[in-house]
Amino acid sequence: MPASSLSPREVDEQMALIARGIAELINEEDLRKKLARGKPLNIKVGFDPTAPDLHLGHTVVIQKMRHFQRLGHRVVFLIGDFTATIGDPSGRSDTRPPLTREQVLENAETYKKQVFKILDPQSTVVDFNSRWLGAMTAADVIRLASGYTVARLMERDDFAKRFKNNIPISVHEFLYPLAQAYDSVALGTDVEMGGTDQTFNLLVGRHIQSQYGQEPQCIITLPLLEGLDGIKKMSKSLGNYIGINEPPGQIFGKTMSVSDDLMWRYYELLSDKGMDEINRMKEAVTQGRLHPKTAKEELALELTARYHSPQAAEDARRDFNAVFADGGVPEDAPALVCSQGADSAPLAFLAAAGLTASRGEARRLILQKSLSINGELCLDPLSPLPPGEYIVKLGKKRFLKLEVRH
Amino acid sequence: MPASSLSPREVDEQMALIARGIAELINEEDLRKKLARGKPLNIKVGFDPTAPDLHLGHTVVIQKMRHFQRLGHRVVFLIGDFTATIGDPSGRSDTRPPLTREQVLENAETYKKQVFKILDPQSTVVDFNSRWLGAMTAADVIRLASGYTVARLMERDDFAKRFKNNIPISVHEFLYPLAQAYDSVALGTDVEMGGTDQTFNLLVGRHIQSQYGQEPQCIITLPLLEGLDGIKKMSKSLGNYIGINEPPGQIFGKTMSVSDDLMWRYYELLSDKGMDEINRMKEAVTQGRLHPKTAKEELALELTARYHSPQAAEDARRDFNAVFADGGVPEDAPALVCSQGADSAPLAFLAAAGLTASRGEARRLILQKSLSINGELCLDPLSPLPPGEYIVKLGKKRFLKLEVRH
Repeated sequence: MPASSLSPREVDEQMALIARGIAELINEEDLRKKLARGKPLNIKVGFDPTAPDLHLGHTVVIQKMRHFQRLGHRVVFLIGDFTATIGDPSGRSDTRPPLTREQVLENAETYKKQVFKILDPQSTVVDFNSRWLGAMTAADVIRLASGYTVARLMERDDFAKRFKNNIPISVHEFLYPLAQAYDSVALGTDVEMGGTDQTFNLLVGRHIQSQYGQEPQCIITLPLLEGLDGIKKMSKSLGNYIGINEPPGQIFGKTMSVSDDLMWRYYELLSDKGMDEINRMKEAVTQGRLHPKTAKEELALELTARYHSPQAAEDARRDFNAVFADGGVPEDAPALVCSQGADSAPLAFLAAAGLTASRGEARRLILQKSLSINGELCLDPLSPLPPGEYIVKLGKKRFLKLEVRH
Repeated sequence: MPASSLSPREVDEQMALIARGIAELINEEDLRKKLARGKPLNIKVGFDPTAPDLHLGHTVVIQKMRHFQRLGHRVVFLIGDFTATIGDPSGRSDTRPPLTREQVLENAETYKKQVFKILDPQSTVVDFNSRWLGAMTAADVIRLASGYTVARLMERDDFAKRFKNNIPISVHEFLYPLAQAYDSVALGTDVEMGGTDQTFNLLVGRHIQSQYGQEPQCIITLPLLEGLDGIKKMSKSLGNYIGINEPPGQIFGKTMSVSDDLMWRYYELLSDKGMDEINRMKEAVTQGRLHPKTAKEELALELTARYHSPQAAEDARRDFNAVFADGGVPEDAPALVCSQGADSAPLAFLAAAGLTASRGEARRLILQKSLSINGELCLDPLSPLPPGEYIVKLGKKRFLKLEVRH
């Protein structure tokens, strides 16, 4: 056995952290082989340069990149600027105008500011696929395209469905998975990670690397993180997200609003605590030795501290408890259940619950900064609240326990 | 009407020559419109740089290029060297190794030597698609590929069949029709011509030109020329061809061997005579005023003169007639019918017909230069003759009327 290689036990240890919370690994045998060599692996994750405003859903994979960093591997944060500067060339959509070089670099800085709250800046390579794809000639593209068949691309779910239903697929759409695969060739990638919706494209990378004489990369897919509702995937458009740029009180309060089940899911996918510790906490809760609210506070503190600071996290806990825990809410406060939508806008539920005599009074009080929701000042009378449970406070004395349902 | 435009009658005159012998025009209305402007049109025909050894089948389209030249249009003889220098990148075949730049240029010279026997060198542009395709970037290719759909490519007969039968189609094969189409954009092509098997690719050019804001080209397809047998398309591998580099006696003799029906077909597709004159000859033959052999001699003379010289053509006629017409063949010469294959090799039919006592004698006489077939010396005892009728002469006195059948 060469001096640099790892013992099976050392490989086991790495595998335990790597496998934590993942959706799929293709395949374990290959990855063990790569790890056993004892050399730092090249880990690649691609990011869209157009959307650098992250929420916790995005951080699941970044957290996994962090795991690889902790194990001494080399992480490439790859910004897919090549396709972005082309824009959507099919002309069927103008929602994605081409980005300028300046915009790409600016977005990259925004990304860095956010992801370096998780990743170690010293051992993270931020790269751009325009570096090699931009230098490719037509002949290079044809050579790349020769390495994959139409039939295999047609196996991709969305292509198969669209072809069957006569929804046009432009030929260039066939080139994107190949370009992404070529990124792995250019970077000599050992492991590529992505969401479960990326499985097909990641597998193309394995094949294309073989075509170019490289050892195929391993594939790790990460699950989509459930949003605050515990059902749908976390997304901005569903309003069930925790943005990592949100103020400390929001991150803390929203984390406290998740169900106990979802809390353990978030622990597994987002926390830096080891699984041993998490499992001990879980057992303690099951056995009644630990209150679930205390466990949730731990998680809320960890996440708030990560994206702000330990001090900001402590302050957020204090503020939160001032409203929720320290007797701030009278036992006999009215309760209201409403549906997400027009009914879950402050103007609507304040009047509906009888906290104000009219929508006019509600609007006036909101403008006077009298409304707080989960301890955060609210100045917007019209934006509907997403599903969840809220403590609404109007002025010093008027309280409402609000539940917004789907 | 602008001064430069043509009258409907002038357009009619051009259309008559253009439409002669073609398989399909897409479409007449568009072409009339282009012609009516009275400006020289850009005519494009693509040629494979790997196979510059032409036979009459190839000259059908070159003849049509000549027609356009006679009408004052600008003809581009486009050598598709871009794809050829890539070779067959799929790795599934090594029958087509990439050509070097030197080979491409050398082949281009070979082409010129041949096609300038038909085309006017002064008004022929020889171009290479590597000039623009070689300069394309990956982004350019993606932009091009965005202009066409997978579904439309799947309509191409061979793609549809292969996909249905699970025979792999490499993705780069989808890029070839698009590259060919882009040639029309680069050249601002008004009319592209090709064989009937090219119809699909030529139509892609129309679409891609529109995508790039150009007026779509018109498409003219030329029929595949029947070989000497009058049934299958002329091809080297079938042995039913007249190569334009063959000696005068071969071109003359092979032309004389075609059926009367096929003769008129060759007249229409290959002769420089006007259709009026051809139709008058045809009528004269029908009415018995002209012997079909005389008409065939005219054609044989014209084709032989084109690829050699009028003098060489006259010499070939004299030699031919010395054997066939001037009593060279005794009335009572034996006749033999055999099948194409082993039986149609000289060694076989000479012995079978009893012209020699044995295959050994046949071989010896052939080596002594005693065998002529249709007036041409034959030194090869083993190569089977293709289907057709032959006058075989061994020494000064032994004759055989040979018919080789399929």
